[in-house]
Amino acid sequence: MASIKPSVPKGTRDFTPIEMGRRNFIFDTIKSVFRKYGYQQIETPAMENLSTLTGKYGDEGDKLIFKILNSGDFWSEAESKKQKAESFEYNSKSLTPVITEKALRYDLTVPFARYVVQHQNEISFPFKRFQVQPVWRADRPQKGRYREFYQCDADVVGSDSLINEAEFVLIYDEALTSLGLKDFTIKINNRKILSGIADIIDKSDSIVSLTVAMDKLDKIGLNGVINELLQRGFTEADIKIIEPVILLQGSNEEKLAALRKALVNSPVGLQGCDEVEQVLSYVAICKLQAATVELDITLARGLNYYTGAIFEVKTNEIAMGSIGGGGRYDDLTGMFGLKGLTGVGISFGADRIYDVLDELGRFPAGSDQSTKLLICCLDKDGEKFALPILQQLRQQGINVELYPAGAKIKKQLDYANNKNIPYVIIIGSDEIESGLITVKNMKTGVQDKRTVDQILGTIPR
Amino acid sequence: MASIKPSVPKGTRDFTPIEMGRRNFIFDTIKSVFRKYGYQQIETPAMENLSTLTGKYGDEGDKLIFKILNSGDFWSEAESKKQKAESFEYNSKSLTPVITEKALRYDLTVPFARYVVQHQNEISFPFKRFQVQPVWRADRPQKGRYREFYQCDADVVGSDSLINEAEFVLIYDEALTSLGLKDFTIKINNRKILSGIADIIDKSDSIVSLTVAMDKLDKIGLNGVINELLQRGFTEADIKIIEPVILLQGSNEEKLAALRKALVNSPVGLQGCDEVEQVLSYVAICKLQAATVELDITLARGLNYYTGAIFEVKTNEIAMGSIGGGGRYDDLTGMFGLKGLTGVGISFGADRIYDVLDELGRFPAGSDQSTKLLICCLDKDGEKFALPILQQLRQQGINVELYPAGAKIKKQLDYANNKNIPYVIIIGSDEIESGLITVKNMKTGVQDKRTVDQILGTIPR
Repeated sequence: MASIKPSVPKGTRDFTPIEMGRRNFIFDTIKSVFRKYGYQQIETPAMENLSTLTGKYGDEGDKLIFKILNSGDFWSEAESKKQKAESFEYNSKSLTPVITEKALRYDLTVPFARYVVQHQNEISFPFKRFQVQPVWRADRPQKGRYREFYQCDADVVGSDSLINEAEFVLIYDEALTSLGLKDFTIKINNRKILSGIADIIDKSDSIVSLTVAMDKLDKIGLNGVINELLQRGFTEADIKIIEPVILLQGSNEEKLAALRKALVNSPVGLQGCDEVEQVLSYVAICKLQAATVELDITLARGLNYYTGAIFEVKTNEIAMGSIGGGGRYDDLTGMFGLKGLTGVGISFGADRIYDVLDELGRFPAGSDQSTKLLICCLDKDGEKFALPILQQLRQQGINVELYPAGAKIKKQLDYANNKNIPYVIIIGSDEIESGLITVKNMKTGVQDKRTVDQILGTIPR
Repeated sequence: MASIKPSVPKGTRDFTPIEMGRRNFIFDTIKSVFRKYGYQQIETPAMENLSTLTGKYGDEGDKLIFKILNSGDFWSEAESKKQKAESFEYNSKSLTPVITEKALRYDLTVPFARYVVQHQNEISFPFKRFQVQPVWRADRPQKGRYREFYQCDADVVGSDSLINEAEFVLIYDEALTSLGLKDFTIKINNRKILSGIADIIDKSDSIVSLTVAMDKLDKIGLNGVINELLQRGFTEADIKIIEPVILLQGSNEEKLAALRKALVNSPVGLQGCDEVEQVLSYVAICKLQAATVELDITLARGLNYYTGAIFEVKTNEIAMGSIGGGGRYDDLTGMFGLKGLTGVGISFGADRIYDVLDELGRFPAGSDQSTKLLICCLDKDGEKFALPILQQLRQQGINVELYPAGAKIKKQLDYANNKNIPYVIIIGSDEIESGLITVKNMKTGVQDKRTVDQILGTIPR
C-alpha cells in the first residue's frame, strides 16, 4: 500500500540537523554582536490583530499577509453581517475582515512599533532591541524567496544621535567578519541628500525616478543616463544642474565636497551631507576589520519610510544581492498614535548570508556536528560498562552518545560517519576484561587502545 | 487625539528583554543537555498542509487548529464548489476545507512524524532529534494556558532499546538540576503494566477509568477508591483481584515485586514490569543529581498513543502541575504510511518551569542583564573619547554601550539602573584632560577614578 509522501506547504522549508547547525552559527554570531552593543532581545507573537498589520505595507503588501480564519463558527458572522446590511456582498474582499481577525506577522518592524507603543511606560529610552523571528508572506515562491523566513533586526528608538548609525556600521563589520566574510562593502546614503538633489531642480516628487536613472551609470554611461532622464521627464536644464552629482566619484571625502558644492542652495541637502560626514567621522575613530564604507548616492531603498541614513551591505567575494540593509525613520510609532519617536535600524539577510558562506565554504568545521564521541557496544554487557563512561564524559561537557547494542558494528560506524561524529569507541567482552578500549578517529581512520581514564582525558570538547 | 493602545491577540504574549533573558536561560540549558546526549536540532515550518494535521488530534483537537485563509480569491473557490455540487452548503464546516489548505502546527510530534517520513532516505536511524518551536492552539485562554507557546521536545525513532528511556531520565535530571531545581520526582510507568492490570480482571477497555479511580487513593482512601470503582462499573470480584495493586507501596523494587505477583497471569503486564526494571537498572548505574525516580502505576497520560514507558516530572518544592512528560509510542509514523518505526520522546514544559524558577527566585543573577558597562558622556567630545574605549572593551568580549551625549547625567544613570547595568563610567572634559575616569558600581554605589587601561582590565565579562 503505497501512500503519498507528505510534504510541506510551498515556499516553506524543513531545516535538517546540518542546516540547523549552520543557521545557529549565523544567528548566534549576530545575536552575540547585538548584545555586545547593548541591544536586548524581545519576541512578539506570530499572530497580530489584523488591524495592527493592515494598511502598513501598501495595497500589495496587504494582499500578501496570511490571515487566520476565526475559530468557531465563522460563517454565522458572515450571515449576520449580510442580514444587517443587505448591500453586503459575499466576495473575498468583503468577507476577509468578517471571517478573520488575526494574521501572521509580515515583518518585525510593525510588531516592534506596536510593542513600543504598548509597553511605552515600562521602556527606558533610548530603547535598543533586537529580534530574530520568522515572518510570513504570501509571495509567489521562487529561488531564494520563501513564504516563511527569519528576519534578524536591531533597532534603536528614542535617540537621534548619529552615534547609533556609526555603531550599526561597526555591528555589520564585526558580525560579518565573525561569520567569515573577508571583503564586503557597507554602502551608506542619506534620504536628505536625495531630497537635496531633487530640490535643486525643483522636482521633489521625482526622487525615485532620479535615483533609478542615476543608478545605471556603470551600465549605460553618462549619455545613457542623460537619455533615460530625458525620457523620464527631466529637462536639459535639470540635467545640467545635476550632472556633477551623477558624475560623483573618488573617496567619500571627495564625493562629499562635490555634493556640498552642488547642493549649496538646498539646506536639507547640506544637512544630509553633514549627517553622512558625522557618521563617517565616528567610524573613522574606530578600526574596521573587513568592511569598506562607501557613500553611494544611488542607494535608494526604503524611500517610503526612511528619512535619514540609508544602509545596504554587499559582499565583494561573490555575486549576490544585498546581505543587509536599514536606515533611519523619523516616525516609527506614529501609526499607533505615539508621535515624534525617531528610530534607526538594520537587518541581516540570514538566508543570503547562508548561501554566501555555503558557496564560499566558510562554515566553521564544527558547525555541522554536535556529537563528539559515539560509544559502540557489541552486546548488552557493553552498555552497562559504557553508561558510567558516558556520564563522566558528559560531566566534562562533552557531547557523547551510545549506539544501543544489537546492531552490527558496520552499521554503528556508518551511523557515526553519517552524523559526522569524529571519535568512536568500541566496547566488547575483550575490552571489558582487559580495560583497554579501542578508540577510532573517524577522520584519519587511525585506532588505538586506551584505558577509560585516558579516554576521559583525550576526547576534545 | 488619544488613540486606542494597540494590543496582542488574546492568549498570546510579548516577551520583554528581562523575560527573554530568562527564557533563553531555560531553552539554552535544555538544548545544551539534549546535545550532550547526541540529540540534533531540526526545525519545521509554522504552517503545515491542513491534511497533515487533520484527524491526528481527535475531533476536539481538529477544532483547535488555527487554519490559514487561502490567499487570493478564496471565495471563487467556494462559489465554484457550490456550482458543481448544489448540495454543498455554505456553512463553517463545509467551507473550511474549501477556503483553507494550510494550518499552524498544533504540536511538534505530528510535524516530526511528517519530517521523518518525508526525509527517511537522508536519515541515519536511530534518529535522535530535538525541536524547540512555538505551537498554536485555539484553546480558551486562561491563567497559564496560552494560544501560542513553545514546546521543547526530544525524541528518538528507530530504536527499541530501553537505554533511550534511561537516558531520558538522565536528561531530565541533568537539565532540571542545571536550571536550579533541587528536588523533583520523575514518575515512570508503563502502558503494558496498565494493560496487565486491566487484563487480570478482563476489562481491557477500562484502563483509563481504572487509573483515574486508583489515582485518588491519597485523597479519598481505600474505601473511597473502592466506591468509585464500583460506581464506574467494576465488580466486587474485580476489586478483590486488583486491591494489591491499588495498595502498592514501598520502594520501586517492592512495588515491582508486588506487581509481578498480581500480574502473574498477564504476559503483557509482566513484560511491562521487565521494562520498568530494566530502565531502573540502567539508571541505577549512573548517579542522579537531584531527581527521585518513582514507579507510579496511576500515571496514565497519553494512553491514546503511548505503548510502553510513560514519564511525568513534578517539582517537590512548590505546588505546580507537571513540568515535563513523555513516553514510548510504537507507531509514530504509521499515520504517514511508514509502518513499524518505534519511538520514545520527552517534553519540557517551559512556561511552567519559568513560573517555578520565578517563584523560587532561582533565575541566575546574570540572566536578566546583558550590558555590563554603560559609558555616559557629558558632551560630544566625550563621545569621541569614548569610542575607542568601547571598541577595546568589545574586543574583550564585554557587552558595553554608550549613552548618546546630550541627556542629563541623572537620566543616563536611571537608564543604567532600569537596564540593570552593573557599571557606569562618566566622561566629561575633566576626565579627558586628566585621563582619570570615574567608574561607578551601580549596585554598591561606590565610585572611584581609573585610567583607561585600568578600566579595560577590571570590567568583568
